[in-house]
Amino acid sequence: MGSAAPHVYAPLPLDPETFTAESRSVIDFLDGYYRDVESYPVRPDAEPGRLRTLLPDAPPEHGDPVDVILEDVRRHIVPGLTHWQSPNFFAYYPMNASTAGFAGEMLSTGLNVVPFVWAASPAATELEGVVVDWMCKLVGLPDRFLFSGGGGGVLHGSTCEAVVCTLVAARDRALSRLGHEGILRLVVYASDQSHSTFQKGARIIGIPPCNFRVIPTSAASGYGLTVDSLCSVVDADVANGLVPLYLCGTVGTTGLGAVDPVRQLGEVARRYGMWLHVDAAYAGSALICPEFRDCIDGAELADSVSMNPHKWFLTNMDCCCLWVASPAVLTSALSSNPEYLNSISQGGGAEVVDYKDWQIALSRPFRAMKLWVVLRRYGAAGMRAYIRRHVEMAEWFERTVRADQRFEVVAPRRFSLVTFRLRPRYEGEQHAVDTMNRKLLVAVNASGRAFMTHFVVDNKFVIRMAVGGAMTQMRHVRDAWELVKEKAKEVGALSTEC
Amino acid sequence: MGSAAPHVYAPLPLDPETFTAESRSVIDFLDGYYRDVESYPVRPDAEPGRLRTLLPDAPPEHGDPVDVILEDVRRHIVPGLTHWQSPNFFAYYPMNASTAGFAGEMLSTGLNVVPFVWAASPAATELEGVVVDWMCKLVGLPDRFLFSGGGGGVLHGSTCEAVVCTLVAARDRALSRLGHEGILRLVVYASDQSHSTFQKGARIIGIPPCNFRVIPTSAASGYGLTVDSLCSVVDADVANGLVPLYLCGTVGTTGLGAVDPVRQLGEVARRYGMWLHVDAAYAGSALICPEFRDCIDGAELADSVSMNPHKWFLTNMDCCCLWVASPAVLTSALSSNPEYLNSISQGGGAEVVDYKDWQIALSRPFRAMKLWVVLRRYGAAGMRAYIRRHVEMAEWFERTVRADQRFEVVAPRRFSLVTFRLRPRYEGEQHAVDTMNRKLLVAVNASGRAFMTHFVVDNKFVIRMAVGGAMTQMRHVRDAWELVKEKAKEVGALSTEC
Repeated sequence: MGSAAPHVYAPLPLDPETFTAESRSVIDFLDGYYRDVESYPVRPDAEPGRLRTLLPDAPPEHGDPVDVILEDVRRHIVPGLTHWQSPNFFAYYPMNASTAGFAGEMLSTGLNVVPFVWAASPAATELEGVVVDWMCKLVGLPDRFLFSGGGGGVLHGSTCEAVVCTLVAARDRALSRLGHEGILRLVVYASDQSHSTFQKGARIIGIPPCNFRVIPTSAASGYGLTVDSLCSVVDADVANGLVPLYLCGTVGTTGLGAVDPVRQLGEVARRYGMWLHVDAAYAGSALICPEFRDCIDGAELADSVSMNPHKWFLTNMDCCCLWVASPAVLTSALSSNPEYLNSISQGGGAEVVDYKDWQIALSRPFRAMKLWVVLRRYGAAGMRAYIRRHVEMAEWFERTVRADQRFEVVAPRRFSLVTFRLRPRYEGEQHAVDTMNRKLLVAVNASGRAFMTHFVVDNKFVIRMAVGGAMTQMRHVRDAWELVKEKAKEVGALSTEC
Repeated sequence: MGSAAPHVYAPLPLDPETFTAESRSVIDFLDGYYRDVESYPVRPDAEPGRLRTLLPDAPPEHGDPVDVILEDVRRHIVPGLTHWQSPNFFAYYPMNASTAGFAGEMLSTGLNVVPFVWAASPAATELEGVVVDWMCKLVGLPDRFLFSGGGGGVLHGSTCEAVVCTLVAARDRALSRLGHEGILRLVVYASDQSHSTFQKGARIIGIPPCNFRVIPTSAASGYGLTVDSLCSVVDADVANGLVPLYLCGTVGTTGLGAVDPVRQLGEVARRYGMWLHVDAAYAGSALICPEFRDCIDGAELADSVSMNPHKWFLTNMDCCCLWVASPAVLTSALSSNPEYLNSISQGGGAEVVDYKDWQIALSRPFRAMKLWVVLRRYGAAGMRAYIRRHVEMAEWFERTVRADQRFEVVAPRRFSLVTFRLRPRYEGEQHAVDTMNRKLLVAVNASGRAFMTHFVVDNKFVIRMAVGGAMTQMRHVRDAWELVKEKAKEVGALSTEC
């Protein structure tokens, strides 16, 4: 038997005493990590390939105790991480971790049930139905997205998956009319601010790449999609014999946090028979506060809506809510009925939800547990207070940038993202200013004291300050502003102050 | 401010003391669960919709302490779960949980980093590269699937995702030659034993449903795909002007655990210019034992291979290894380069892996940590011993069934799945025997003392006994056999013994 000589005992993988002792070691490790993370460089100064030189070429033949493994994590892995849970992480959109999100994930991971069909774990399927309905009400979506309203929701791992599934649903509904060769005539519409996942999703499902339309936006509409620019493109396509299929609207775009006019897009979508998907991946969390609710006005005209609790809703990776107005359109495109999954006993049957038919994969984790624990632990009021704290910090940052005439805010802040840059001092300085802002951002990030990312709009290089870390407090935001000013001086931008 | 009156404090979601205290409560809960799970009915006697009647219609306005939440889990949710970690779970293919898999998931969930591009967490990306290389060597794949051999691997959440990604890669490589209208001529091949995910995946990526070929297998080849039956279908398609695109081979099919002849399929695939994907979702774990290595002979002719550590490799949900021989074909089909992800600093660049271009979604969890901890904790020898223990238990069950002339083994056991049924006593009894076996399975499952599922092959209803739970010991397998005999008697099958 070679390497498996008789003296090698098979592990007892779920022995409760070992489980508890080793899990407590991991908890202690994470306790220490959360205490220390603020002191780490937010982004490591890592050379590509460094970790591979530190680890062996092959897995060990014999196992190590958990403490040895945790020590290797501490020495080799932690120094090469970008610390998304650092209070000084202001990049991309932050992905919140929380004690409740962690607890929910532990329960889900520990129970390790796989609710692909109802019978494979009834309570896991049903909790998912309950929790997506709760979230639907909390973000203020119309009743038609509730199970009781004829719609329904599902938890995916990412917006991209939600987009692929809704694109497939829209496509197959259209092809049932057009025949499969109609796929060459289908067109998908997004704005130049929409997430790249729409273009990738359309490509994945077989839409000809030349049939993906990127509609320009501008500062005049706050970088939201306008009906006029949309309709002129759609009309031209229709005149050319193409078939408008799917329109993406966004509440809180990735680059600038812009908001498309949902009601107007819905009216256009209905007129042309298009599927409207509203992507509220980031800003969907803010919709739980009534003061942001107007951003989703007109959602009753949408076919589907998605938002990511794993971004700004204290739900550790990964968790994306997708709601659809017509589950049958989704499931008729995504269902499969292999014999090995058929239920042979009483119960179940037509009235239950089999979530395998609402997603790409067959297998699926018990994500509902995680989101349910977050909602139970913090409550709606706690979550609103949490969101508002971030928005207030971003308001302060925006106000402070505006008050400093060397800087400018590029797009109006709606939620917790501030887009800003050093301002050109005269016409024609644009290129030099871009270089200066680029250097500024490199210097800020190289300091290790904060991590921000950038965007380019109207050919301007823009720095994004995305407030939203679970541990971020006002002092971190103040420190970030001091850091920006300090580095701006170092890279020379402020050497000749106006 | 309505519901968010000033007295509501925002949660401090990662306060280390709270984190540790509440996480320990969850560990204690799971400790108790693992101690008790054997005593629970494996599959609940649940009425559809029960959980919804127990929970409120809307999320709570104010949060609850963690102990209150855990008590609700205990009272309302646990009784409605199908207990995948019960030692008496023999259904589908078991999904192993383990202390190490749990520890790895806790680390991943606690750190909550998102390695979509290298710069977003260098060590997380690099650990993934290391661990897929380790697994590649461990299961005995050829060097061409290693990064150092020009190939490479990625961790997905499911086989389905791996299949969609490789289908898209194969499709776009073909369409670059044929033009997009060529999509109507592309054909995907699988056997009648292949997983339903291939048909679903082909549909998702826009292959005309009429261009998905299901090639029959039979007992004569152990339900493996034969070259003759494959080639006759492919030749007919080519003669009709269609383009063979993608062939699916399986090592360890879902229904029966059958194995397709990988080398022969590879030769056919090369001859017709098809992409060959080898799906070893379940049995891939067994390939770490040299005695099973012949099942993957010829893998150097494949374009991609996948296996699921979340099934039989002690890695809690979810984790699927995908290896490709040519990463460039994959990434050219799946890459996107939005401005907000471009790296502006030194380092990074062309030589790093950006895993967003190896998968459907942009965001992704740090799955590498989980699989790395499993390999570190148990070692290759420990994992082999673990796999062999399950195989030995299945061998015993198979031998015991064969020794009882009232039963028959339907397909030869290769790994840890035994497919069996009550045997017809005379020609023409087929329908009655199917009914009897169906009743037998319902009775076994209704007892709560074991949970098995079924399959249908050659019009025979077959019971599947899939050994592979993390806590399953020989006594559970013996008990399952006693249960089968007892229930067979109850449903009358054995009332007139031969």
